[in-house]
Amino acid sequence: MAVGMSGKFITFEGSEGSGKSTQARLVYAYLRKRKAPVVFIREPGGVLLSETIRKILLDARHKNMTNECETLLYMAARAQLVEELIAPALKRGAVVLCDRFLDSTFAYQGFGNGVSMDFIKKIGKVVTQGIRPDLTFVFDIDTKKGLSRTGKIKDRIEQRALAYHNRVRGGYRRMAANEPGRIKLIRVNKTKEEIQEIVRGHINRLLGLNPGRLK
Amino acid sequence: MAVGMSGKFITFEGSEGSGKSTQARLVYAYLRKRKAPVVFIREPGGVLLSETIRKILLDARHKNMTNECETLLYMAARAQLVEELIAPALKRGAVVLCDRFLDSTFAYQGFGNGVSMDFIKKIGKVVTQGIRPDLTFVFDIDTKKGLSRTGKIKDRIEQRALAYHNRVRGGYRRMAANEPGRIKLIRVNKTKEEIQEIVRGHINRLLGLNPGRLK
Repeated sequence: MAVGMSGKFITFEGSEGSGKSTQARLVYAYLRKRKAPVVFIREPGGVLLSETIRKILLDARHKNMTNECETLLYMAARAQLVEELIAPALKRGAVVLCDRFLDSTFAYQGFGNGVSMDFIKKIGKVVTQGIRPDLTFVFDIDTKKGLSRTGKIKDRIEQRALAYHNRVRGGYRRMAANEPGRIKLIRVNKTKEEIQEIVRGHINRLLGLNPGRLK
Repeated sequence: MAVGMSGKFITFEGSEGSGKSTQARLVYAYLRKRKAPVVFIREPGGVLLSETIRKILLDARHKNMTNECETLLYMAARAQLVEELIAPALKRGAVVLCDRFLDSTFAYQGFGNGVSMDFIKKIGKVVTQGIRPDLTFVFDIDTKKGLSRTGKIKDRIEQRALAYHNRVRGGYRRMAANEPGRIKLIRVNKTKEEIQEIVRGHINRLLGLNPGRLK
């Protein structure tokens, strides 16, 4: 978070099939029940312009997209999302839950695709307007297991894809080790409900909520 | 241009209504007649992905686009254009004519909209892969006159828009003054044909063409 903002910014990160979106949704439902002023968004997207950019990123025709072009499109979508939605919501004191944020670019484009970390860091600083998550969850799952949960691989695993996803996972683990205060690494080896309990514990502490009040 | 490239890269710059696109087209026709291996592209665009990004930039629904988002979209389109088209064309020895390039971002987003020059420079270095124009024409016209030629203003001139376009023009003039070897500032106070003669003079010198051979 940056100066002059009274809300809290919480991001959900992790590789494919880690269950991060499910956990984010459960937190959203939980905070709504607790009557917290909460906003839930996904990246890339969240506002009209960023959703339009998302479509380009997901369009199968653009298979030859360069790594730098891809990185810049994610950053463009993020610049708009921060300005239009995240910064104003934090200013008015809301809890902003974001399914992916800048750490995804470090993990996927940086660690995964070899885009310069310095390039990502410099652009990231500008587009986020200095806003950093107060709390980030990284859901960590064995790569093969995660990919099989998404249905993206079946019997035969493509080795190149596996190596790529392993680099992404390794990147997330390294970031979590470097910033243990902000980033909570959560091993996905329990039930959805058990993981949510751990996540809520961190959120209750951050927001000063009484854990016993609501199941 | 960068190491390992044998072609020549020529860009056409200038504010609205300066006639730069017309001059670029005339040069293209001229070089085709002279049997030079020539490629003509416009920015943003030139390849499928960049044209898709162009559509976002021109879409009137996106009036609230932030300056940083806009800059990043131009840069994303440029990254793809350089990788897919400009770099390969220069490698095989072509003359590449480009209607706008990185200087436009300095002029419009930098000087015009106040985006950090350092931000533009750092991203520009990466997306251009170090490829710089061998020759750049900046067509310089009085702002009001240029705007009236585009039909974008009629009787009443919006002062804020005029100030913006004056900043863009001033930026171009400053860049030309800083790099007189690469950038040729051409005052638009002559006929289209007279201006084309001046432009061809520079191009003939760059490409080692005999000026007398063809009218």
